[in-house]
Amino acid sequence: MTDERPGSLRPGGRTARVREAVLRAGGDLLAERGFAHLDLTEVAARAGVGKTTVYRRWRTPAGLVADILTEMAETSLPHADTGTLLGDLLANATLVAETLTHPRQGPLFKSLIAAATCDEEAARALHHFYDTRLTEWTPCVERAKSRAEIPPETNPRTLLKAVSAPLYYNLLTTGDPITPQSATTAAHSAHQAALLGLYT
Amino acid sequence: MTDERPGSLRPGGRTARVREAVLRAGGDLLAERGFAHLDLTEVAARAGVGKTTVYRRWRTPAGLVADILTEMAETSLPHADTGTLLGDLLANATLVAETLTHPRQGPLFKSLIAAATCDEEAARALHHFYDTRLTEWTPCVERAKSRAEIPPETNPRTLLKAVSAPLYYNLLTTGDPITPQSATTAAHSAHQAALLGLYT
Repeated sequence: MTDERPGSLRPGGRTARVREAVLRAGGDLLAERGFAHLDLTEVAARAGVGKTTVYRRWRTPAGLVADILTEMAETSLPHADTGTLLGDLLANATLVAETLTHPRQGPLFKSLIAAATCDEEAARALHHFYDTRLTEWTPCVERAKSRAEIPPETNPRTLLKAVSAPLYYNLLTTGDPITPQSATTAAHSAHQAALLGLYT
Repeated sequence: MTDERPGSLRPGGRTARVREAVLRAGGDLLAERGFAHLDLTEVAARAGVGKTTVYRRWRTPAGLVADILTEMAETSLPHADTGTLLGDLLANATLVAETLTHPRQGPLFKSLIAAATCDEEAARALHHFYDTRLTEWTPCVERAKSRAEIPPETNPRTLLKAVSAPLYYNLLTTGDPITPQSATTAAHSAHQAALLGLYT
């Protein structure tokens, strides 16, 4: 649940380098000030890229948000494989909690979600990003089925969403802190509901 | 979870009528177009109120969002009292699902949450609104404790948040539809986790 790619100096020449600089600067500004204050001229200056290039390629702040989300979706992250469903769900909850409390990633996710509330292109890119992440973690649920830990009719998407949901709820509505304890509680309650067959 | 007040012609004269018209027009525009496009001049025109009055009293789009949330928090809504914790949680989940799928209220909530991602005053008002709603439903959890349905150490806030969270997660991240089935699943899984003492 992060767009950080260690050592990610992309091959591909100038176009790829420009994209990387612009997405990085755009993400930084989104994290610092939020979507309502995102200005492409400022992004261009921060990225050290010509303003015309940025406007021609990304057109609007929402267009830039959509491309940030597309790049995040392209950046594959390995899912956990601890040997038990509960272990995997705890790993997932911990990853989500770490992302949402990260000084850059937490505010960035808030801003990406805010952009999607008022722009269709950003919304499509956001949905695609979450689809990708949920699909990446589906093997954890399928392995739990093959180990007969949970009913074979369990819906992986419903289960995985139940792990993340309480953490995002704190981030976006109540403002309650996201703690290791809240991550543990989210994983355990989703796990129990899955055992009971509530996600079939 | 709605700011609709049937028959809500407030007493209090011109100032109260102006506030009501401006909050209504602001809410309508937020629902139609989102926070990033909220313009106080347009709100004034839609409300039939002088532009100067609107700018003097609400100053910024975020200031107007904060006042909309303050008024929503002031509007008390009765909680359910069905006689069982599961019944009350199902009523709560149904209310949240109906609000988030309402043609005006769903987009309005998205926009209020988006505003809170980039403005401190709006964020404080949003947190206060959710505090108020969670406090209003706390008696359902306390009654369940007095009926010995759940452990006395159960945290009402954690339990009630677990009911809403999966519905908001669909609204704000995946875009998956919020159905009566998703409301039922959210209530049942929070209920089971509470029975097991996971929210203590």
